[in-house]
Amino acid sequence: MITEHALLPVKPGMEDDFMMAFGEARKLMAQTPGFIDLSLSRSIETPNEFLLLVRWESVEAHTAGFRGSANYAKWSAALHHFYEPFPVVEHFAAVDPSGSGPGPVPAPR
Amino acid sequence: MITEHALLPVKPGMEDDFMMAFGEARKLMAQTPGFIDLSLSRSIETPNEFLLLVRWESVEAHTAGFRGSANYAKWSAALHHFYEPFPVVEHFAAVDPSGSGPGPVPAPR
Repeated sequence: MITEHALLPVKPGMEDDFMMAFGEARKLMAQTPGFIDLSLSRSIETPNEFLLLVRWESVEAHTAGFRGSANYAKWSAALHHFYEPFPVVEHFAAVDPSGSGPGPVPAPR
Repeated sequence: MITEHALLPVKPGMEDDFMMAFGEARKLMAQTPGFIDLSLSRSIETPNEFLLLVRWESVEAHTAGFRGSANYAKWSAALHHFYEPFPVVEHFAAVDPSGSGPGPVPAPR
């Protein structure tokens, strides 16, 4: 399992419209094979900045599966015009929380 | 409940030492009143970048409670020398996932 991470800078004044659009668009992502769950949250210090975290079974479920799907075109059309600049998307793998040693980062499946 | 968010840029070559140190230091944070849980994960695209997410009962539990505690001095001594540049820390509040409307962002308690 990996986590997709993006800080979404929404054009000031468009935050409410973005949240409404996201509430619909999230269903497109949730239909993708390998999707686990997502959360959207809003910065308290910078109210036009949102944090998107999506858990996927693998990096490829996101990068090939979702981005290669017909739903991604709908997602882009629904959401991408809210962003300025366009967000950086990265993927993260959990670090062993035991602290027993560094251990390898799980490879993307 | 809010989420503390920080992207931690660890000096290249110090990643293993950082993960070891973090495994100990996390206990300092976990002793703080209002702490709920934390996760540390590692970027797949940028392996010296780590994502720290900490759930707190309120922003103040982190900013006043933890940062004002004796444990914070120990935390800083254990971890801050790994970072270059020093990370930006922000706090996020969940957005209503129903998509039923924009709704207010919960105020920090």
